[in-house]
Amino acid sequence: MYTLSNNEIKRIKSLTDKKFRDLYGLFSVEGEKMVQEALRSGFKIEEVYRSEDIGEQAMSRISSLSSPPPVLAVIHKPVELILEGNEKVSSCIGGSGLFLALDSIRDPGNLGTILRICDWFGIKKVFASKDSVDIFNPKVVQATMGAIFRVGFHYADLELICKDVLDKKGKIYGTFLDGDNIYKKPLNSGSQSPALIIIGNESNGISKHIADMVSDKLFIPPFPEGENECESLNAAVATAVTIAEFRRRIY
Amino acid sequence: MYTLSNNEIKRIKSLTDKKFRDLYGLFSVEGEKMVQEALRSGFKIEEVYRSEDIGEQAMSRISSLSSPPPVLAVIHKPVELILEGNEKVSSCIGGSGLFLALDSIRDPGNLGTILRICDWFGIKKVFASKDSVDIFNPKVVQATMGAIFRVGFHYADLELICKDVLDKKGKIYGTFLDGDNIYKKPLNSGSQSPALIIIGNESNGISKHIADMVSDKLFIPPFPEGENECESLNAAVATAVTIAEFRRRIY
Repeated sequence: MYTLSNNEIKRIKSLTDKKFRDLYGLFSVEGEKMVQEALRSGFKIEEVYRSEDIGEQAMSRISSLSSPPPVLAVIHKPVELILEGNEKVSSCIGGSGLFLALDSIRDPGNLGTILRICDWFGIKKVFASKDSVDIFNPKVVQATMGAIFRVGFHYADLELICKDVLDKKGKIYGTFLDGDNIYKKPLNSGSQSPALIIIGNESNGISKHIADMVSDKLFIPPFPEGENECESLNAAVATAVTIAEFRRRIY
Repeated sequence: MYTLSNNEIKRIKSLTDKKFRDLYGLFSVEGEKMVQEALRSGFKIEEVYRSEDIGEQAMSRISSLSSPPPVLAVIHKPVELILEGNEKVSSCIGGSGLFLALDSIRDPGNLGTILRICDWFGIKKVFASKDSVDIFNPKVVQATMGAIFRVGFHYADLELICKDVLDKKGKIYGTFLDGDNIYKKPLNSGSQSPALIIIGNESNGISKHIADMVSDKLFIPPFPEGENECESLNAAVATAVTIAEFRRRIY
């Protein structure tokens, strides 16, 4: 057993707030499973706190959850979280592969679920516009169920990302209400040149300047086609159905 | 303008609590879009409250949201919310169609998202075990984005549902880690006899007594197959990918 000072408790607890995560360059994860995933990952761990060592009262003060799990880790944010400049973008994308770009995703649960989907379907890198929700928001981190430690993630200017993909003769996909039935379109899964799937904002979809760079507009058809009052699918659900179809073609 | 009594305000506000929804047989929805959907639906509306009529202060007292929208409707719960007895189950299922059964779904966001998925993909009836989250929980209602007014929903004994489907020579599908690749299995979409897709609990999957009645075990393969550390997909995401594949086969 050892005692955490009030200042230390305050510092750890403050990581639930983006301002302090940015200030310290740290974030926290909670629960045995998440901490184990962190320890196995390439992320640099600052410290692991266990309630058996620091006491349950201190644990409940540093936790962001109403039922604090017995373990919390403080972890360094990755250095290249923000991708800047043409060269870095180009080398990050490389010559092939299937990538995801999130255009202003705002809901923490959606971002976490989308990373979990990418983990399952083998999307190795995800890009998000800088006005998207913070990846180290505790709600995002918990919703990833560990995928945050396995899927590459960068904030970037999506226009640069799109330009690089087009320069490399790659394809850019996005879902639109006036797009073509995804089940009847040829899909390039990125084996010869990069392929990028854009996911739009929860309310407004893909922003105009990004939509203009999309090479193939897709649509997930409702059932029965053309007779449906439902307006849209949730952003994470549309992501899952789209990526699953890309993968189905090459299983 | 008119004034709501304190008792009336308390009664409306109490509908955020399941105990009082059950006591009064009522639930509430908020926001212009949801209220419009309610008015167009077959649901019986008790009353619509607008902040221009009752004042913003009263509105904020009856609302369950931190930023109260300008309109709230109090609505009667449907009479046949709980489906009981073999005969009612049998006539509800009928002779054909694709149905969904939720085995102990606990997360309100998941249930809401699942109803929205069913709305999009034309699943007309959803059954949930009685230990699932309450469909009239405000978080479920909002997450459905109106699908709650279009998709039939019943709490039921899932064993009775499964028996009826099997009696009618129908198929029962469920996703399991040791299931067969969904993309390589024949799927019966319910055109000749009923077909039922079971979705399991977020942590524990499909319960044993229901799993025993599944006729076709499915699996959504990760990518690349067999080399993935990710444990599972979120329940709503698995629902979407599964139903999308059933529909893709018959588009």
